[in-house]
Amino acid sequence: MKAFVTGAAGFIGSNLVDRLLSEGHSVTGFDNFSTGFREFLEPASRCSQFRLVEGDLLDGDALARAMAGADFVFHLAANADVRFGPDHPRKDLEQNTIATANVLEAMRAAGVRKIAFSSTGSVYGEPEVFPTPETAPFPIQTSLYGASKLAAEGMLAAYAAAYGYQVWIFRFVSILGERYTHGHVFDFYKQLLAHPAHLDVLGDGHQRKSYLHVHDCVNGILAAIAQAPEAVNIFNLGTDEYCEVNDSIRWISERLRFTPELRYAGGQRGWAGDSPFIFLDCTRIRSLGWRPQLTIREGILRTLDFLQRNPWVLEKRR
Amino acid sequence: MKAFVTGAAGFIGSNLVDRLLSEGHSVTGFDNFSTGFREFLEPASRCSQFRLVEGDLLDGDALARAMAGADFVFHLAANADVRFGPDHPRKDLEQNTIATANVLEAMRAAGVRKIAFSSTGSVYGEPEVFPTPETAPFPIQTSLYGASKLAAEGMLAAYAAAYGYQVWIFRFVSILGERYTHGHVFDFYKQLLAHPAHLDVLGDGHQRKSYLHVHDCVNGILAAIAQAPEAVNIFNLGTDEYCEVNDSIRWISERLRFTPELRYAGGQRGWAGDSPFIFLDCTRIRSLGWRPQLTIREGILRTLDFLQRNPWVLEKRR
Repeated sequence: MKAFVTGAAGFIGSNLVDRLLSEGHSVTGFDNFSTGFREFLEPASRCSQFRLVEGDLLDGDALARAMAGADFVFHLAANADVRFGPDHPRKDLEQNTIATANVLEAMRAAGVRKIAFSSTGSVYGEPEVFPTPETAPFPIQTSLYGASKLAAEGMLAAYAAAYGYQVWIFRFVSILGERYTHGHVFDFYKQLLAHPAHLDVLGDGHQRKSYLHVHDCVNGILAAIAQAPEAVNIFNLGTDEYCEVNDSIRWISERLRFTPELRYAGGQRGWAGDSPFIFLDCTRIRSLGWRPQLTIREGILRTLDFLQRNPWVLEKRR
Repeated sequence: MKAFVTGAAGFIGSNLVDRLLSEGHSVTGFDNFSTGFREFLEPASRCSQFRLVEGDLLDGDALARAMAGADFVFHLAANADVRFGPDHPRKDLEQNTIATANVLEAMRAAGVRKIAFSSTGSVYGEPEVFPTPETAPFPIQTSLYGASKLAAEGMLAAYAAAYGYQVWIFRFVSILGERYTHGHVFDFYKQLLAHPAHLDVLGDGHQRKSYLHVHDCVNGILAAIAQAPEAVNIFNLGTDEYCEVNDSIRWISERLRFTPELRYAGGQRGWAGDSPFIFLDCTRIRSLGWRPQLTIREGILRTLDFLQRNPWVLEKRR
């Protein structure tokens, strides 16, 4: 495979790049380094099958040029900042919706017709069915992030119908593991390093969340593109479990041997658009034989290990 | 109400403007006249409560200035050309998705928090449930037009969550009636005027379609915004019936007293992305007391009357 990976220097992107290279594929990574790290591409850069193109998805011409010769696009670049969406609504529109439109158009220009896309369980808004299947009732969006990913999903499917593309859409739960650099566990860890005696918690701590380790995530993506044959293939990707925010706090505190006083902001939701319960039905991807190897607890602990071994990440991020 | 109507010179927009003025509201109409007609605003322009601003939704600053002082936005401007979407995919993105983002941002700038939006039954793709309710299973998009409207719907709902907007989303069947200027009936009428002896029909003629008269459509919009109190209100809007393309051909031919030879292109769909069956469940809007006054047949015949009385429309359109 001649893979083209957007967001190659990001968390999931760089893990995918390493995995594709290890399986002998050639990979062109594309990133504007707005949130990605060059450090994450160090292993890849030692491989002759890897090429890095620094560029922005909003520059469609540069994108199409970089994509020339590829036969499969993994579109992972995104503004993944859910919580602060309302501070800059244009960002989700540009970096998720319009950027995806540009990727799809660059594919037309470059003659590439297969694409895997990182969507999100946030497209379900606040669902009423748990675990939530891919065929859940038509959702109502609750975040700008989810809306921008839904918009991108719709375009992928429409391009499949209009131009014969084959598309794989993955609705992720929260992904964590090596190279994880933002979110829940990151925030808690950073807080506890700064002040081990207390922890500020958004919401009431009872928000129920699902997590998946990035290696399981990459395995799921590769299993699906190898096996799912439809024009439009949509898969939830998560573990068959969830935990409370309070559970993750307890696991993190135990591992770090801290006993912080917990200060809850209160309310069912951590912020406007936060979903109080995320739990996806992953029967469809499991029917392909895929299984997650790590539990949520194991994933969280490995994430902590990564953050402890890589203090530079905390320095660089915010 | 101080209404701001985008697409005011369009088919549905101009009918809505007339109706709002007749009820004593003041109306600012906004249109770039890319597909709208000045003739459709002639009645409105005689009313002192009406103001026309010529401008483009892609110019966000001009839009926000024009919107100042309004308290309700009706966002009807769109690229409504479903069939030729694949010829110019950027058009749906810009004129539907990005234009809607600009409307929502202009509302923030102008302090307006209520918006009614013309979406489409096309967001259901090719549904498996008939009649199709608002809560149908999570759809897969089959047209760039539907995808762009779905993207807009998602942003409206996300703005409701993020900024306290109140939004009304209407998923229309095909609308026809006075000032109708493109689509099915228009194409058949135009063909028959040019060559009464034969009619080229896309697909096999068995596509099942739903239509609603524009006056019933406007009635439905006004009933919903007056009565539906949620932050996000979503309504299908159609009749409780459907017809085959062959039915509409028969009604049109009988009215015109033509007996054309029918030349079918064949296939279940008229074009890539055409839905072979559109039939929406309108229980929700009916629960507000709204009823369509005209059947599909009556709507088609009134549309023909309009086209016969206004031959200039055929001259100007394409």
